[in-house]
Amino acid sequence: MPEAPVRTDVAIVGAGPVGLFAVFECGMLKMHCHVIDTLEVPGGQCAALYPEKPIYDIPGYPRVGAGELIEQLLEQAAPFEPVYHMDQRVEKLERVGEWWRLTTTRDTVVEAKAIIMAAGVGAFGPNRPPLENIQAYEGKSVFYYVTKPEDFRDRSVVIAGGGDSALDWSILLAEIARKVYVVHRRPKFRGAPDSVAKLQALAGAGQVELVIPYQLHRLEGRDGELEAVVVRDFDGGEKALEADRLLPFFGLSMDLGPIRDWGLDLDRQTLTVDPFTCETNLPGIHAIGDIASYRNKLKLILTGFSEAATAAHAIYPRVHPGEELHWEYSTTKGVPGRA
Amino acid sequence: MPEAPVRTDVAIVGAGPVGLFAVFECGMLKMHCHVIDTLEVPGGQCAALYPEKPIYDIPGYPRVGAGELIEQLLEQAAPFEPVYHMDQRVEKLERVGEWWRLTTTRDTVVEAKAIIMAAGVGAFGPNRPPLENIQAYEGKSVFYYVTKPEDFRDRSVVIAGGGDSALDWSILLAEIARKVYVVHRRPKFRGAPDSVAKLQALAGAGQVELVIPYQLHRLEGRDGELEAVVVRDFDGGEKALEADRLLPFFGLSMDLGPIRDWGLDLDRQTLTVDPFTCETNLPGIHAIGDIASYRNKLKLILTGFSEAATAAHAIYPRVHPGEELHWEYSTTKGVPGRA
Repeated sequence: MPEAPVRTDVAIVGAGPVGLFAVFECGMLKMHCHVIDTLEVPGGQCAALYPEKPIYDIPGYPRVGAGELIEQLLEQAAPFEPVYHMDQRVEKLERVGEWWRLTTTRDTVVEAKAIIMAAGVGAFGPNRPPLENIQAYEGKSVFYYVTKPEDFRDRSVVIAGGGDSALDWSILLAEIARKVYVVHRRPKFRGAPDSVAKLQALAGAGQVELVIPYQLHRLEGRDGELEAVVVRDFDGGEKALEADRLLPFFGLSMDLGPIRDWGLDLDRQTLTVDPFTCETNLPGIHAIGDIASYRNKLKLILTGFSEAATAAHAIYPRVHPGEELHWEYSTTKGVPGRA
Repeated sequence: MPEAPVRTDVAIVGAGPVGLFAVFECGMLKMHCHVIDTLEVPGGQCAALYPEKPIYDIPGYPRVGAGELIEQLLEQAAPFEPVYHMDQRVEKLERVGEWWRLTTTRDTVVEAKAIIMAAGVGAFGPNRPPLENIQAYEGKSVFYYVTKPEDFRDRSVVIAGGGDSALDWSILLAEIARKVYVVHRRPKFRGAPDSVAKLQALAGAGQVELVIPYQLHRLEGRDGELEAVVVRDFDGGEKALEADRLLPFFGLSMDLGPIRDWGLDLDRQTLTVDPFTCETNLPGIHAIGDIASYRNKLKLILTGFSEAATAAHAIYPRVHPGEELHWEYSTTKGVPGRA
């Protein structure tokens, strides 16, 4: 049952670096924002995929960690009191009178005078293996990320996949877990040669068990508590690996999802915009950052920041009709709540 | 006599924040830069006019001092070893074969495959009072900026002007100098009311002498050593103020100067560019930052940063003809000379 709609000036879809900076740019023009994102915390890929990675091409930062950049952007946006709706995907877009109404997978309903799509490559998340009832185990016995290796101490763990994540975690958890199975459907791994050699050495020493070439086939257990992972070879031969944890590492899916069905002009995985306003073909719906495309577009975080300013200025007359924009530089007026 | 030309990939006119970031963006695309600026040190207005002022709208910086931002940008550009030609203005632009040749007021000659105009509002500097032979006194007895108030200890100082700079320095130097005259051609000052009241109080207490309404008329002295400033009222009455220092505060001039005569398409004080490449009407000459204009242009430092990336990418095929741009993100490849 959808909640009662909340109304705001601008709804921002995507809480990555560009979406966060859009909160600031809108705030400087007296427009309040709600931000919706599929991830649990703001920051997009910077926070979820590579928080420790250094970035060199943010102007004024010879080097900044991706996670640190997000913290700075959150602080910069904070004085404008954005409302974040996390861990939910926007499913539906409708025109309701003068408002654009967004409804999410958690039944949050936001009505806004304008929308800024800052959704990057779309919702991204782990590729789920196609196992029946896997959702029931997720977060209890099945994990797509390892946040604390210690959680796996003395567990029997099945790690599935053949890339660097599978390799790195197999090597690391071999020291912590009671048992580590590595299930891969090919004889060769795709990761760094050094990691492959390490894994082979651990397998030789009996510290991990390679289950190759096999694929995940079925989960056994109850109430989300895993008891065994059944794997299958290409001749249909099955075996059950006794295990209470499964870590599938099959890469990321990136998907525009329902955004494809909203009547927005698409160019492959991007939304076509007028670069002078960042407006899409639907009036009041703008797109910025990697999801927005136009001639000679550069997919840089920096470009997205600049587009955030462009979109905010273009949206201003829609939110404050008839009010002239008395533009002042930040050096003159500062920011509310700051000295 | 002009020096032998130095050749480079890209000549950047203007060492403000946007020009400095253009060095970085060109460097990331393997293009070497020479940078020319009228000021003595890089940083443009940020360094020369308001180094202490906080800026709030640089993405990822909730607040940054203008001077600190410049230091960061210099550090970010440094690995690409730009050559700075400071304290000189570009006077002449010529086409020489495949090269653009720039000649400066110091007879520096730079030949480049492409030019990036990042000249902001043009060369800016103090408005000089029209006094005969004032150049002979500049830097010895006549100053347009105060860098160290202590340099004025026990001096007899004439301060000319009616705005905030004249007021602020009169108040501050009243404590340090032996004598402070304030020459203004109108009875009313234009500064903050609070400062005006302070100055009047100091005048009442005999700590400064108001010379009102008078104008600067003539300098007396020899070899750049000032002995007296002769002022004149509107009836032609003169008087000589015994003084060894003059501080004229008549505001800033901003002037495109010779840039106007190079055949570039102008829109008032700006150069018209194609926003998708930042190229002007002359091929290979690009413009970015406040000096560049196109539809819906926002005059933000941030916008200039983004244009620096646009220009660098557009210039690339001119500097590296036939070489495909193997674009990698900074997170993947890092920066030369950095871990």
